[in-house]
Amino acid sequence: MRPNSKLSLIALVAVALAFAATIARAQDPLPSWNDGPTKKAITAFVGEVTREGFPNYVTPAERIATFDNDGTLWAEQPMYFQFIFALDRVKALAPQHPEWKDKEPFASLLRGDMKGVLAGGEKSVAELVMATHAGMTTEEFEQIVKNWVATAKHPRTGRPYTEMVYQPMLELLAYLRANGFKTFIVSGGGIDFMRPWTERVYGIPPEQVVGSSIKTKYEIRDGKSALVRLPELNFIDDKTGKPIGINSHIGRRPIAAFGNSDGDQQMLEWTQGSGARLMMLVHHDDAVREWAYGAESKIGTFSDALMAEAKKSGWVVISMKKDWKIIFPFEGK
Amino acid sequence: MRPNSKLSLIALVAVALAFAATIARAQDPLPSWNDGPTKKAITAFVGEVTREGFPNYVTPAERIATFDNDGTLWAEQPMYFQFIFALDRVKALAPQHPEWKDKEPFASLLRGDMKGVLAGGEKSVAELVMATHAGMTTEEFEQIVKNWVATAKHPRTGRPYTEMVYQPMLELLAYLRANGFKTFIVSGGGIDFMRPWTERVYGIPPEQVVGSSIKTKYEIRDGKSALVRLPELNFIDDKTGKPIGINSHIGRRPIAAFGNSDGDQQMLEWTQGSGARLMMLVHHDDAVREWAYGAESKIGTFSDALMAEAKKSGWVVISMKKDWKIIFPFEGK
Repeated sequence: MRPNSKLSLIALVAVALAFAATIARAQDPLPSWNDGPTKKAITAFVGEVTREGFPNYVTPAERIATFDNDGTLWAEQPMYFQFIFALDRVKALAPQHPEWKDKEPFASLLRGDMKGVLAGGEKSVAELVMATHAGMTTEEFEQIVKNWVATAKHPRTGRPYTEMVYQPMLELLAYLRANGFKTFIVSGGGIDFMRPWTERVYGIPPEQVVGSSIKTKYEIRDGKSALVRLPELNFIDDKTGKPIGINSHIGRRPIAAFGNSDGDQQMLEWTQGSGARLMMLVHHDDAVREWAYGAESKIGTFSDALMAEAKKSGWVVISMKKDWKIIFPFEGK
Repeated sequence: MRPNSKLSLIALVAVALAFAATIARAQDPLPSWNDGPTKKAITAFVGEVTREGFPNYVTPAERIATFDNDGTLWAEQPMYFQFIFALDRVKALAPQHPEWKDKEPFASLLRGDMKGVLAGGEKSVAELVMATHAGMTTEEFEQIVKNWVATAKHPRTGRPYTEMVYQPMLELLAYLRANGFKTFIVSGGGIDFMRPWTERVYGIPPEQVVGSSIKTKYEIRDGKSALVRLPELNFIDDKTGKPIGINSHIGRRPIAAFGNSDGDQQMLEWTQGSGARLMMLVHHDDAVREWAYGAESKIGTFSDALMAEAKKSGWVVISMKKDWKIIFPFEGK
């Protein structure tokens, strides 16, 4: 072989290999996940439950996957986004409520004193939530949420909150659905706060969203039917509320569940069972690209007890730092 | 033409016509519905909302249809079937409850004195329901319902209760789904009493069943997670509860709704709106093939006020007698 033709051959092989790698990347359903045991746990599980005739095969009807939202599908720092929504709404509504100037927690909030707001504890938070989430019809509230989502910007990135979603989790949702799964959100967040945008952002329709709720009252207003949102708690979809909410809305146990905090432990316990099951917890350990928090955090607490339970029960802990190539979709652009 | 060949031609035309009629019947998605304005209302509505580019077109995601169960999809005479289930369960559980012999309403029931049972009114009914529906895990209750459905027989027809479903409504469910609709049950009946069999009988999966419920409590029992059913009411999915339940479980308004009694009025009001909508009420007017009852009935009350509302609002009243060729699937066999 002449040196020239040898070189050509090497060049040809190099081109072929590069081409093969491109094809492989294009076919990888989870391109933002680094190769390793975490990604492997997902693909092995999906392979197992979809292989007909094998012992761990699960019929499509039973392929239920549930996802927490805050900290699992989208970010939750510096505060739960729904709480930021409530704060924004108080400011927007203040002109119609002159009495708020002398009434806590509104007065502190309008002065920009967040410490003062939070001094009142849960009672203050509940007051802010009810003042901003109740009193209107369900359709009016939907429009308020849509307007906020379309205009509000995250304080750190300047991006709309619905862009602060995790690209690897979007790929995971799509991958599961492509394999016959029905994907649900099961979140401590407000059900009616999520539904106006989950279909567009996650491909999850309103009827597959489970969340916390306030009571509603049916009325005929000007000859038209309406549901009016009442300042009264109906259901808290957190901790033991998650299996209860799953049973109420879905009526069967999931075979895969994804969370990120102590509030998700019972959902993962409820999912765990005989046969192939996948329980995963997103761990926020990337202070550079996202945030690093866990046991000490009030938001999205990932306690040492939860970590111990995960180890004991074989739940997979996802390291955002090690397992994810990119965090947010806009990084890839 | 010779007489012979003329006869052959007539025979050929007759055969061709018969064949064409068979084809037409085979292609008719609603073969158990008599032709007429009721059937036409259904097919015209479906045609309208599925015709892309036309003003009343509705995207598949928004094609939500809700169905009451008792008296709309299956029979409800001589008593709601779930109440018969409760009575059967009291009898089955009696040996474990010697105290019931001296305690109402159990004592009357065990003596076969239904008047005595009902003398206690709603309170007695609630006691019977709680004694038979609470105290076990959700999975144990599911199995109890499955066993009852597999063995119990309707007192008049001797058929399993799940065969006492309306053939024309089964066709309607299938027809809507074939046209991109998502079909839901929205019933005053117990959500966990329906879910074990609705997928097999109606093609409606558990996550598309909305109903009344009792509260549950999350527990770890012998290292396994369980939801225990508590003797405490959670939600009544009837009258104004129907739009509330629809909003909670589905999160959007239906564009078609089907009921049969006063308990369904608010669901139909909630469905009514701009654009093409279909609201229908099954009227039990066939004393020969099913039962005839309405305004005076305690079960499935169809009051004069509801009939007036239907006329005023353009809701279609289905006459079982005139609109349905057969009532139950077993008639066709």
